[in-house]
Amino acid sequence: MVDEIPDFYAVIPAGGVGSRLWPLSRADAPKFLHDLTGSGHSLLRDTWDRLAPLSGEDRIAVVTGRAHRAAVESQLPGIPDRNVFLESEPRDSAAAIGLAAAILHRRHPDVIMGSFAADHVIRGSRVFEFAVRDAVEVAREGYICTIGITPSEPAVGFGYIKRGGELIVDGARDASLVERFVEKPDLDTAREYVADRSYLWNAGMFISRADVLLAEIEANNPQLHAGLLELAEAWDDRERRGPAVDRIWPTLPKIAIDYVVAEPAAEKGRLAVVPGHFDWDDVGDFASLAKLNSGGRKNDLAILGENARILSDAASGIVVSHTSRVISLIGVKDIVVVDTADALLVTTSEHAQRVKHVVDALKLTGRGDVL
Amino acid sequence: MVDEIPDFYAVIPAGGVGSRLWPLSRADAPKFLHDLTGSGHSLLRDTWDRLAPLSGEDRIAVVTGRAHRAAVESQLPGIPDRNVFLESEPRDSAAAIGLAAAILHRRHPDVIMGSFAADHVIRGSRVFEFAVRDAVEVAREGYICTIGITPSEPAVGFGYIKRGGELIVDGARDASLVERFVEKPDLDTAREYVADRSYLWNAGMFISRADVLLAEIEANNPQLHAGLLELAEAWDDRERRGPAVDRIWPTLPKIAIDYVVAEPAAEKGRLAVVPGHFDWDDVGDFASLAKLNSGGRKNDLAILGENARILSDAASGIVVSHTSRVISLIGVKDIVVVDTADALLVTTSEHAQRVKHVVDALKLTGRGDVL
Repeated sequence: MVDEIPDFYAVIPAGGVGSRLWPLSRADAPKFLHDLTGSGHSLLRDTWDRLAPLSGEDRIAVVTGRAHRAAVESQLPGIPDRNVFLESEPRDSAAAIGLAAAILHRRHPDVIMGSFAADHVIRGSRVFEFAVRDAVEVAREGYICTIGITPSEPAVGFGYIKRGGELIVDGARDASLVERFVEKPDLDTAREYVADRSYLWNAGMFISRADVLLAEIEANNPQLHAGLLELAEAWDDRERRGPAVDRIWPTLPKIAIDYVVAEPAAEKGRLAVVPGHFDWDDVGDFASLAKLNSGGRKNDLAILGENARILSDAASGIVVSHTSRVISLIGVKDIVVVDTADALLVTTSEHAQRVKHVVDALKLTGRGDVL
Repeated sequence: MVDEIPDFYAVIPAGGVGSRLWPLSRADAPKFLHDLTGSGHSLLRDTWDRLAPLSGEDRIAVVTGRAHRAAVESQLPGIPDRNVFLESEPRDSAAAIGLAAAILHRRHPDVIMGSFAADHVIRGSRVFEFAVRDAVEVAREGYICTIGITPSEPAVGFGYIKRGGELIVDGARDASLVERFVEKPDLDTAREYVADRSYLWNAGMFISRADVLLAEIEANNPQLHAGLLELAEAWDDRERRGPAVDRIWPTLPKIAIDYVVAEPAAEKGRLAVVPGHFDWDDVGDFASLAKLNSGGRKNDLAILGENARILSDAASGIVVSHTSRVISLIGVKDIVVVDTADALLVTTSEHAQRVKHVVDALKLTGRGDVL
């Protein structure tokens, strides 16, 4: 089961600052470059390590901003230079994944690509591999296939995928059509979903033939498709690539892959799903980060930071220490403390979502130096 | 009423780190050197400014540790060199105040001295002046006189003074004998005290003739008295002072003035009290500090620190900023955040008393570098 999958290429879009993880995540140190699990590796590196057994190191591409090139290459010394696709500015996920599809399709017309966010946490890599292998078999049949995570609780922070009719595909144990996508539910609705068993978490993983993905983009956003093809045509010519990026990339529509590919494909019965029975989290905020690092123990204080000097007395929650300062926490429950050289955040798990507003306020009040 | 009081000398014992205000207060930056009210001045300087109209600048003495000499002189440029009494090590309040009494008594046999802590906060300096003037008149009659603060609430963090029989003293409007001192009460008892109206807060201010104070020390602790007299005898001889301090000071009993002077004097009917109708606080912990700086508004976030860069969203309590870092507080109530270059404290008003335990733990675990 550790054989590489024929025709398979892994694409890692590594964009997104992760504003709700400020001041840990920054414009120049986005979420995917951090070790959020105490593994000793960045999330990007963990993603690479998870995918390399499936695709081989030569067939992993990363789509990232020009500013992150050096950091990405230092995290991933095995990545071939030609597989680092640099954006001149963020244009959202449809452009990023579409660019990879267009380039890879020119290089390998039969390629089946899977896109996997650079900043999610997955535990249970063997089970993950099973799911990807199944999804690739479904994708070979011409479907766009997603991996839906079997819910471990009635989460309100994720979107859900409603499974529809069963798909019989050789080599895939448990595939279905996607009936529809549903937005983040309220708690009662989430409980119904979990009880119903036909709902899975939408983890934003898409596996499909590159030609199928491009056809879906073409059908739903011809302008984006045309730009991507033009870029791909110039891409592997060293002299033409730079000018093409500078000219075309900023004109591409800024839109999420969900709207250009996943939802339209679902409506047309072209989107499939295989369940993923592994632990997954998008670590969207510090509440998730605390939960992820406390091992589920409610009264624990999770500590992130190699050189953390923490003294706690009846404290629970999470402390992220990126300085050498002594941090003392007394009697604070579900607390979130993030200590960096130029910014400090103190909040609670309950208010973790509001960190994004602080980031907005910092921009508005001219304190962007700490973003 | 702004005339200096004849024969009056103010003594400011400036010792005590203020462990419960760690990491703001440190061994090398004790509480009295901090601005805890946003006045722009240290507590020591505020104390000086309050006393100078009563005694004149030439008649204020400060008793402090050798390590704090430069800091004290820089805070109090008007202090005559001969009025800075330096301890070679801390020996508690009886030795500190007794030393001042012994020295001043040799210099001015008729001196009436008042001792006032360097690190308390007082608001209402005119009312304070009235109380001191009254206390001096009582002291002239041979009493040791304290100023008891009229309680503004049933505080459990202070000791109380029970007033006894009225004293008729010319020039003092409302003097009584002290019936007894009582330790910090529980809340129910504190409520009774406040309702009773004969209880005042013990603010540790003592005004008496130096000869009376020394006689009380002699009666209750002859060893301390002998040492102090020997020191005083050598003090104003530049060549003899240093050796005398080195030899005698470390042998003096370490004991609080309360046990050597106030309580025995009260038992013998020699302790008087005049009420002080001004705002007073010993700022014993961060809960007091928060209250002091919030103007009594429960949901306010008090901010201390000249260059504080604070962004708060639904936060209350206090933040002390001694760095240039941006501090963001979201949804934390009654929080205490103290941000210094090498140490950070996060707690709540409710747990403010436990800061002392942290300081103990830091000592025990070899992290004394941040004390």
